Amino acid sequence: MDAARLNWLTAAETARLIADGALSSEEHVRACLARIEQTEPTVQAWAHLDPDSALEQARDADQRRMRGAPGGPLHGVAVGVKDIIDVRGLPTEDGTVLHAGRLPRHDATVVSRLRAAGAVILGKTVTTELASYAPGRTRNPHNPEHTPGGSSSGSAAAVAAGQVPVALGSQTNGSIIRPASFCGVYGFKPSFGMVPRGGVLRLSRALDHLGVLARSLADLALVTECIAGYDDDDPDTQPPRARPPLSAVLAQEPPMPPRLALVRTPFWQRLDADARGAFDELAESLGGHAEPVDLPDSAARAIDWHRTIFEADLAASFELEYERGADKLSASLRGQIERGRQVTAVDYQKALARREIVDEGFEELFAGFDAIVTPATLGTAPKGLAATGEPLLATLWTYCGLPATSLPLAHGENGLPLGIQLVGARGDDARLLRTARWLCAALAAPA
Amino acid sequence: MDAARLNWLTAAETARLIADGALSSEEHVRACLARIEQTEPTVQAWAHLDPDSALEQARDADQRRMRGAPGGPLHGVAVGVKDIIDVRGLPTEDGTVLHAGRLPRHDATVVSRLRAAGAVILGKTVTTELASYAPGRTRNPHNPEHTPGGSSSGSAAAVAAGQVPVALGSQTNGSIIRPASFCGVYGFKPSFGMVPRGGVLRLSRALDHLGVLARSLADLALVTECIAGYDDDDPDTQPPRARPPLSAVLAQEPPMPPRLALVRTPFWQRLDADARGAFDELAESLGGHAEPVDLPDSAARAIDWHRTIFEADLAASFELEYERGADKLSASLRGQIERGRQVTAVDYQKALARREIVDEGFEELFAGFDAIVTPATLGTAPKGLAATGEPLLATLWTYCGLPATSLPLAHGENGLPLGIQLVGARGDDARLLRTARWLCAALAAPA
Repeated sequence: MDAARLNWLTAAETARLIADGALSSEEHVRACLARIEQTEPTVQAWAHLDPDSALEQARDADQRRMRGAPGGPLHGVAVGVKDIIDVRGLPTEDGTVLHAGRLPRHDATVVSRLRAAGAVILGKTVTTELASYAPGRTRNPHNPEHTPGGSSSGSAAAVAAGQVPVALGSQTNGSIIRPASFCGVYGFKPSFGMVPRGGVLRLSRALDHLGVLARSLADLALVTECIAGYDDDDPDTQPPRARPPLSAVLAQEPPMPPRLALVRTPFWQRLDADARGAFDELAESLGGHAEPVDLPDSAARAIDWHRTIFEADLAASFELEYERGADKLSASLRGQIERGRQVTAVDYQKALARREIVDEGFEELFAGFDAIVTPATLGTAPKGLAATGEPLLATLWTYCGLPATSLPLAHGENGLPLGIQLVGARGDDARLLRTARWLCAALAAPA
Repeated sequence: MDAARLNWLTAAETARLIADGALSSEEHVRACLARIEQTEPTVQAWAHLDPDSALEQARDADQRRMRGAPGGPLHGVAVGVKDIIDVRGLPTEDGTVLHAGRLPRHDATVVSRLRAAGAVILGKTVTTELASYAPGRTRNPHNPEHTPGGSSSGSAAAVAAGQVPVALGSQTNGSIIRPASFCGVYGFKPSFGMVPRGGVLRLSRALDHLGVLARSLADLALVTECIAGYDDDDPDTQPPRARPPLSAVLAQEPPMPPRLALVRTPFWQRLDADARGAFDELAESLGGHAEPVDLPDSAARAIDWHRTIFEADLAASFELEYERGADKLSASLRGQIERGRQVTAVDYQKALARREIVDEGFEELFAGFDAIVTPATLGTAPKGLAATGEPLLATLWTYCGLPATSLPLAHGENGLPLGIQLVGARGDDARLLRTARWLCAALAAPA
């Protein structure tokens, strides 16, 4: 194996080579660290990196393997963790000076589960301010003058730059789908309640999702499988009979060719020419497998209901930060919090209750379709680092808790990547990933 | 069996006699109907009664038994259902003229489960206005000049008057515990999330509980077992491994004598002399089995947090009623709704979030004690029918979702009944009932 390219292996490939003894975890982690050293001055994806600790975890993994201890599905594989997710012994500063120096004493549930699967926690990736809109310092690896998107900026950029095969992100509005689209990687926001959020900065109990950024669909399935499932600390997770068999279903052929709903969204006029062209081209190449579907009017209004919940929850979650350090918050977050303080409990509950009604509409839609195909972002990553771009096209699916994935299937005229978003029925994450694989294959080799 | 006393049998006794062929369901239901005919002019416990339908269900049950069909645990047993719980074919009018003539097309989940257990739905029992504070027409069977308590007024009175062995009630503040105490019956509000609420008038998703009124602890266990357990339609229920084995645990001796925490509550000064005397007498007779425990200050403040959630939820739940028919609502409910409309989303969420903190305090307490013993009401049923009495002593346990039961163990100087409340650890409903049985036995035969 060419050491200079080890960093580009996927997590699944890396895990297999390590399990076979063809690669050590230490070699793998050294390749990641070397790539970080080379690219980090430009990309700036990492908030906290402790190479010594990462190498120590890697050597531990190698020794355990050599002693014949059974290895987990991520044995020896490096993972990046968004800096709103607690990792014991590493700072978790949430992208704000107000939490500077915060050193968690416990791993978040998902980090414990990654460790139990054998993963090496490489470090903490840059988040926007409190996982909201004000950017961190990360740049887009495809062009450092452009935003990587946010709020999972560092996770998407690190994976795109080949610094780490996979990283955890989170999404309360468009924080996985948008950076995945802008950075040209695979992003996955599983169904609401699929991944437990204990030990993670809370923005909104009703809207927060954890998810994964990766360079392959197989890696999305592999990592999600390791972190998903009921946990006592997250009342929105439900005890499942077993972990969702994402990898196994992903490896299956669909029993019949999927039926796809092409959804231009009520915001089609706001898409730029690149995004519209890419979507129409995709629609054409899907031929009879896809059918245009209009969303009901409530879909556009869901953006307002999402905002009501989001801003009220930001006001409640960051009340202390606002009261003690409003001057250290960005103007945009201050504005959100101040609007959120005005929301009444009745309007808040209405915004929550309407979700059930919108959900029912989607249940009907998914009786006829395997997935919705829809743009992931309004266009490619905007130029400039003062903002992270518009989350609009991810909002509805976040509001409803539907599983969504961004697939790096298109490019703009400027050569920057552009994601295609696939959305599935709530709880049917495995079928969504299987449909995504079918779609990627169909586009690579059109019939 | 003396036909004139059949109506006083418990549900468990009735079910056993029916299963043995010593009693028919029709005889049992006729005995209930006869008792209703005799006492209803005074008690007025029923909102809707359909004797023909009840007798038809009873004859069906008898025929099924004679054909050798396997019978459920309530085979042939009459049950009363509070008039906020949907029963197909019977009006469900929620105690308000605004819902007059409302005829549900589906049974509530708990009613389906009662039918599956073989029960005969005898009729709908009177509720206060929208299960809130404004009284219905029911009177206390022990003295018709006194309130039966509310909001499950008809269920408690019907059971106390020997009109039906068991009835379903609901509690959002003190609506099972208070009428149970005032009417001298056993009342049980299981843990939050134990009994699914599909098809039941919603006051507050966070606070609404369904429960049971009965004339024995065994009946509380028997009926709760039939209606408890996960249901898709209620997101606050959790898939259990199996139904809670309440009856089986109730029948066990505790492995060691229970340790009881005597909680006078922060409201001790508001109790009347009867209630204080009864509680102190109980405390004395429990001797070394019980130990006085002071609640933290947050317990008193929980009353305010409960009110914040309750009023905001009433405002959201009854928005249509308020907008279309405020003049047909009671002044007290209008006041609650109007205060609820002023609650901000931030204060609402804080009131919800503080519950987790109070809960943690109770988890510590229940590490050292099997149950809390505490007064159920400030005294016996107040005179007059214009109000249903003060729910204060039930509020904290409702807010925290802890299982609570009122035991008819005391009386006031006026001869009216007075309940003793036992509260258990959340989710440990079986232990609570077993402890209650121990307590009743210990008081009947002091060592």
